[in-house]
Amino acid sequence: MTQSILSHVYENGLVLVAEPMMSLESAAFSFLIPAGCSQEPPHRAGLAAFTCEMALRGAGKRDSHQFISDLENLGVERGESVSVNHTSFGGATMSKNLWPALEIFADLLRRPHLPADQLEAGRAVVLQELRSIEDEPAQKVMLELRRRQYPDPWGRSSHGELAALRSIQSDAIRDFHARTYAPNGTILGVAGRIDWPRLKDEVGRLFGDWKPNPTSVHDGEQKLSRREHLAHESNQTQIGIAYASVPYRDPDYYQASAAVNVLSGGMSSRLFTEVREKRGLCYTVYATHHTLRDRASVLCYAGTSAERAQETLDVMLAELVRLAAGVEQQELDRLKARIKSALIMQQESSSSRSSSIARDWFHLGRARTLAEVGKLVDELTRKSINAYLAEHPPRDFTVVTLGSQPLEVPVGIS
Amino acid sequence: MTQSILSHVYENGLVLVAEPMMSLESAAFSFLIPAGCSQEPPHRAGLAAFTCEMALRGAGKRDSHQFISDLENLGVERGESVSVNHTSFGGATMSKNLWPALEIFADLLRRPHLPADQLEAGRAVVLQELRSIEDEPAQKVMLELRRRQYPDPWGRSSHGELAALRSIQSDAIRDFHARTYAPNGTILGVAGRIDWPRLKDEVGRLFGDWKPNPTSVHDGEQKLSRREHLAHESNQTQIGIAYASVPYRDPDYYQASAAVNVLSGGMSSRLFTEVREKRGLCYTVYATHHTLRDRASVLCYAGTSAERAQETLDVMLAELVRLAAGVEQQELDRLKARIKSALIMQQESSSSRSSSIARDWFHLGRARTLAEVGKLVDELTRKSINAYLAEHPPRDFTVVTLGSQPLEVPVGIS
Repeated sequence: MTQSILSHVYENGLVLVAEPMMSLESAAFSFLIPAGCSQEPPHRAGLAAFTCEMALRGAGKRDSHQFISDLENLGVERGESVSVNHTSFGGATMSKNLWPALEIFADLLRRPHLPADQLEAGRAVVLQELRSIEDEPAQKVMLELRRRQYPDPWGRSSHGELAALRSIQSDAIRDFHARTYAPNGTILGVAGRIDWPRLKDEVGRLFGDWKPNPTSVHDGEQKLSRREHLAHESNQTQIGIAYASVPYRDPDYYQASAAVNVLSGGMSSRLFTEVREKRGLCYTVYATHHTLRDRASVLCYAGTSAERAQETLDVMLAELVRLAAGVEQQELDRLKARIKSALIMQQESSSSRSSSIARDWFHLGRARTLAEVGKLVDELTRKSINAYLAEHPPRDFTVVTLGSQPLEVPVGIS
Repeated sequence: MTQSILSHVYENGLVLVAEPMMSLESAAFSFLIPAGCSQEPPHRAGLAAFTCEMALRGAGKRDSHQFISDLENLGVERGESVSVNHTSFGGATMSKNLWPALEIFADLLRRPHLPADQLEAGRAVVLQELRSIEDEPAQKVMLELRRRQYPDPWGRSSHGELAALRSIQSDAIRDFHARTYAPNGTILGVAGRIDWPRLKDEVGRLFGDWKPNPTSVHDGEQKLSRREHLAHESNQTQIGIAYASVPYRDPDYYQASAAVNVLSGGMSSRLFTEVREKRGLCYTVYATHHTLRDRASVLCYAGTSAERAQETLDVMLAELVRLAAGVEQQELDRLKARIKSALIMQQESSSSRSSSIARDWFHLGRARTLAEVGKLVDELTRKSINAYLAEHPPRDFTVVTLGSQPLEVPVGIS
C-alpha cells in the first residue's frame, strides 16, 4: 500500500495534515487544541476538562440539543479528551459526511455558547468524574505517579481538584476558551477517503479567519517526594514505578521504545514472564513509554494482593535494573515482528491514522508515513539499543504505592 | 463494497465461516470454543478461565516459552476471553502469516500441555484476577446484577469463586479440556485478505480428525433475590438495573435493540440527556442489550456520588418505564444514521468482522453480511418499535446497588 501525507499551514498557524486512504469509505479527523491542563492557572485545576464539557453544550446557531442531534444525524462517532498539552476532539464517519461534520466542529471550537444556565450540570459531571477515580485505585496510583515524576505543570491530572472545580465560574471558562482555543498550536489530522484540494479549501474557509493568540507555559519544579504511599483499605496493593526516558522527537526514541517493548510488549516480554507467568504475582503488569514534547518517562504498573506486593515490587525493580545489561537478539526479532504486524493493522484504520499524524506533527513538526516508521524499526539493532541502555540505565525511580501497607524499596535501588 | 460470506461445516461439526476483505492486508480469526463457564461442574466456579490460562502454557511440540515466542514472531496480536457459552481465542496478523498462526492454534486447542509444574503459577494469576474485581466496584455491581438476572448457569461470572479456584487440581483441568474443547460447537470465523479454497483445506487438515464430544447444559433456576445491596465503604454508589429482552435470534431483536439505542446510544440518548447532561448525576451512564442464545436482558449502569444515588436510581427507572410509551421519529432517524455509519466502519476491520460472523453463526446458524444488517436497520419503523415496546414494556427490574447506603426502589416500580 502506498502512503502519502499532505499538509498545509494556514497563515494563522493552524496546521492541516492528511493521509488519503482511498480503499476505505470512512473519514476520520482529530483536532489537537493547545488547551491542555498545563495551561490552567493556579487554583483552577480541572478548568480544561470543565471547558471541554461546556463546549459540547451548544455552538454557533445550534443550541445544546440541536448541536448533538445534528452531529448524530451525520453518523459521527466522536470522542474528546484532555491531556497535559491538548484538548482533543475526534470523530469518524462516512466520507461524504466529513464536510458538514467539520462545519459543526468549527462552531464548537470557535463559537461555543458555554451556556451559563448549564454551568451547574456541567460542574456536577466533572465532579462526578473526579470522584469516580477515588473508586479506581489502579488509575489513582498512576495519576499520582505522574504528578511525582514530572515537574509541574507536566505531571498534572486533567481531572483537576475538588476545591478548584467547585469554585470555577462562567467567566473563568470563557477566559480559558478565549485564551487557549486558538489556531496557532492547533493541529487537525484527517485520514480516510478524502479529496485533498477540497479539504484544504474547506478548512481554510472554516478556520482561515480565526485569530491567533499568544500562548506560553513555564516549567515549574518537581517539589514532591518521589516515594509515596497512599493508604487505602483493601486486600489489593497497586504499584506504580517511573523513570526518565527520551521523548518522541529524540533521535534515540526508537532505541528507548524498543527497550520498553522488551520489558512489556506481548506475552514473551520480561515483566509479563517474570511477574505474571513464572510467579503468578498479578493479573496485569505493564510498562509503557509516555512522551511529552520535551521530556518522557517509562511508567510501570502492577496490581497485586497485599501479601505478595513486596515481592512484586522487588521483582519489577530487579527487571528494570537488569534491562541496563541489554537485550537479546531473539527479543529484538520478536519485537520487530510484533511492531511490523501492528503497523499493517494501523494502516487499515482511518481513526488511528488521523490521530497519529496529528500527534506526529505536534512532536516533530511533520508526520511520518507508516512506511517510514517501518524503516526506522527495521534499522534497529541490538548494538544500538544496548548502547542506548548503557548510556541511559533505568534508575532514579519514582515509586508510588496504594494499599493497606507501605512497601520497602530494596537497598541499592536509587 | 460487495461482501460475501462463505462457510463450511466439517464432518465432526466444526464450522468455518469466512468473509474475504481483499482491500486489506491483514487477516483475523476468532475461535468460539464451547467451553464457557456454563459448562463448569458444581464447586468448580472459575474452571473455564483456569483452563484457558493453562492452555496458553505450551502445546504440541512447543514448550510454554517456544509457544509464545513463535506466535510473536508471526506478529499475531492475540486475545482470549471466557463467557458463559464460550472460551474465545482470537488473533490478527498479516495475511501471509495466517497459515502458521492457525497451525499453532490447532495445537493450543487440541494438544495443550496443561503443565502440572505451572499449575500454581496459573492458579495465582486467576486468583489475582478474581481479587482485582474486589477493587473495581463498577465491574462488581454488574457481575452481581447478571447473577441475579439470569437463572444458573447463565448468570455466572467467568472469574469464578475463591474456594473453587483454590481447590482445582490438574485432573479437573484435563477433564474440562477433554470434555469441552471439541469440534462440535466450535465456530471459527476468519476475515480479511484470505484465499477461501486454501483456507477450507488448511482448516480441514488441521481440525478434520478432531473427535466430537457430547455436550449439554441444563437450565437451573434463579433462586436469588432480585433486589440486592452490597455494602462497600465509599463516597460513590454503583447502580445496576436489568430487565428481560429478546435474544439476537428473535425476529423482534432489531426492534428491541433500537429501543435500547434510544435509551443509550450516543449523546442524544435519553439516559445520557436526563441523567448526565441535564442533572449532572454521573459521568458514566449506559444501557446495553446483552444476549445469550435463548434469553437476553437489558443491563443498565450508573456510578454516582452517595448523596445523589437515590435521585439517579429514580431518574433511571422513570426513563425505563417511560420507554414503554414509545420512541419519536427523530430518535429513530438519529439512531439509523449512527448505526449505518458504524456499519461502514466495521466493514474496514478484519478483527471486528471475524468475531461478528462467528457470533452470528452461534446465534443464527448462519452469518449476516453488513449489507443485510443495513437492510434490517433501514426497515425499522417507529410503528414496529412502538408495537414491540407496547408488548414488552420494561418491567420486573432486577436492581443491585453497591455503596455505603442501600437505596429505595420507588413505589409502583415492579
